[in-house]
Amino acid sequence: MTDALNFEGWSCPLPLRDYPNIVMGHGGGGKLSAELVEHLFLPAFKNPTLQALGDSSVLEVLGGRLAFSTDSFVVQPLFFPGGSIGDLAINGTVNDLAMSGATPLYLSAGFIIEEGLSVAALHKIVEDMAIAARKAGVMLVTGDTKVVEKGHGDGIYINTSGIGLIPNGVNIAPNRAKPGDVVIVSGTIGDHGMAIMSVREGLEFETTLSSDSAALNGLVEVMLELTTDIHVLRDPTRGGVAATLNEIAKTSQVGISLDERKIPVKPEVASACELLGMDPLHVANEGKLIAIVPQHSADKLLEGMRKHPHGAGAVIIGEVVAQHPGVLVAKTGIGGTRVVDMQLGEQLPRIC
Amino acid sequence: MTDALNFEGWSCPLPLRDYPNIVMGHGGGGKLSAELVEHLFLPAFKNPTLQALGDSSVLEVLGGRLAFSTDSFVVQPLFFPGGSIGDLAINGTVNDLAMSGATPLYLSAGFIIEEGLSVAALHKIVEDMAIAARKAGVMLVTGDTKVVEKGHGDGIYINTSGIGLIPNGVNIAPNRAKPGDVVIVSGTIGDHGMAIMSVREGLEFETTLSSDSAALNGLVEVMLELTTDIHVLRDPTRGGVAATLNEIAKTSQVGISLDERKIPVKPEVASACELLGMDPLHVANEGKLIAIVPQHSADKLLEGMRKHPHGAGAVIIGEVVAQHPGVLVAKTGIGGTRVVDMQLGEQLPRIC
Repeated sequence: MTDALNFEGWSCPLPLRDYPNIVMGHGGGGKLSAELVEHLFLPAFKNPTLQALGDSSVLEVLGGRLAFSTDSFVVQPLFFPGGSIGDLAINGTVNDLAMSGATPLYLSAGFIIEEGLSVAALHKIVEDMAIAARKAGVMLVTGDTKVVEKGHGDGIYINTSGIGLIPNGVNIAPNRAKPGDVVIVSGTIGDHGMAIMSVREGLEFETTLSSDSAALNGLVEVMLELTTDIHVLRDPTRGGVAATLNEIAKTSQVGISLDERKIPVKPEVASACELLGMDPLHVANEGKLIAIVPQHSADKLLEGMRKHPHGAGAVIIGEVVAQHPGVLVAKTGIGGTRVVDMQLGEQLPRIC
Repeated sequence: MTDALNFEGWSCPLPLRDYPNIVMGHGGGGKLSAELVEHLFLPAFKNPTLQALGDSSVLEVLGGRLAFSTDSFVVQPLFFPGGSIGDLAINGTVNDLAMSGATPLYLSAGFIIEEGLSVAALHKIVEDMAIAARKAGVMLVTGDTKVVEKGHGDGIYINTSGIGLIPNGVNIAPNRAKPGDVVIVSGTIGDHGMAIMSVREGLEFETTLSSDSAALNGLVEVMLELTTDIHVLRDPTRGGVAATLNEIAKTSQVGISLDERKIPVKPEVASACELLGMDPLHVANEGKLIAIVPQHSADKLLEGMRKHPHGAGAVIIGEVVAQHPGVLVAKTGIGGTRVVDMQLGEQLPRIC
């Protein structure tokens, strides 16, 4: 990188944990990411819509409500078991929109391509995007391509932004979790992160691990047909279920208590996590959602979710409590309770 | 870059001028960029909204019309005379929206930061974005940050996407140029590109060159108050006025004829272009617009534009003709006529 200006004498007023330079962890979806948002982005762009910190922002336009979201994808490798950067880029933004209860409609795509990427690889990635967009029922309507010199990129980076329409009566937001609500997960956790790690590390159980990359708007549609009384929806990507639930606990000022024995993890994912010393709660998912709903709606929702292919493994994994606001705890198998914190930085860099 | 799959045996069906790999020119806004769009992106994402190929796409939502646009910024250096990647990222997307006649409202920002960027530099860039957003009257409502390892980026890449509202009665599109229309430019051309080049090449007249980076939505608002009878608006960024007018000529199936003597170029920009062997018509602008309007509206529009700071230098530089459809020509100072083609690839890589 080249800085044309000299920042030596330019003091940074930010308590960014005293880091003078950006480190990988600032992009990891953990505490360092949160600090960057809280101490740098929010003060600069101060406005209530941004401060709501949902997966997408909610805009009042033309007498209705639009959801608007953006995500950049820098995953390595570009192709992995169960998907590629192409379908990930579509599904990721579709899911961010769906998590506000919106019907995703239109997507943009911004490509930053490294000189030397094969046209065949680009073609495959773009095909994957087109297939994923068709599956999700969204239209890619605008785009942009930049090329950077060899050695200044990593094959391809893709940004997608998206617009969706929020139906009347739907009010889903990260600050709406209430004591007494239950925490539902739509299926097994950790699949995406461990599929990526298996390829990177050349693990021998590589063949059995596959990313869960999928668009969840169909599942959300089914859920909203059953009841609009859903408080929070989030897709636990970077930072995993732990980061997602910590954020919700803080934003809603509630405690969240998980029952570890009920958290669904595939045996091969559990083995890989153990081998690499990782906690599945911190591993990224790309086709799962967390729903926080009133207890009385839970059974009906679970029944409906399980009929949908992306919700077949839906279970209740915990509850929202009035105690320890802002803190996520897990009841362990042997009867103890541990605090599940957010990671400082990244456990698995460049997972999406 | 890493390709996890082997594409050796995977034949690419595209006549992308027989390039097996992406080259810098595919991001230059010239013929190679156009080929990538035409032969790779359009066939994959086939839909009429994308095919309209405007600076932004026009979406019918909630009984009204939204403009939606995306742009990634990879400019080097990050700070240059007259601006930075920060204000460029805001102004670029604001302008793309304004070129459909829309009132820009909401922006997203996706950051891809290279490990090691100083927090002070990031802070300055984000401040520049915030100031530019306030000046343009738009709100940044959603964002995303990724960090890539040192050696896989170039300080910072920024994607901005934006949403605007198109007023009733406004119908501006790249296919609406008609024979008899006049071509207006809002001021001097080539300022941005030559400011960047002066820093990169260490030219001695560096101090006198400055980017024209500016948001043009205020100017467009003034124009639309005078008349909604504007056929085409475009901001001539990558590829310059030549690429923009070539695209309009092709999309509208008309000829365009420029009078070279009338094209405003600052003396210092003209000198720099001469020194580096560049044609100002191919050099990027970031605060200028091209308007194609019926002859009878031109005087009124010019008068109004000249009262606005960003339109003070507005002049008529040419006309739309029925002859040579799809072709841009320029009448030279000595009475001849030359064809002004689009460049194949980039003249000035990573200018925005």
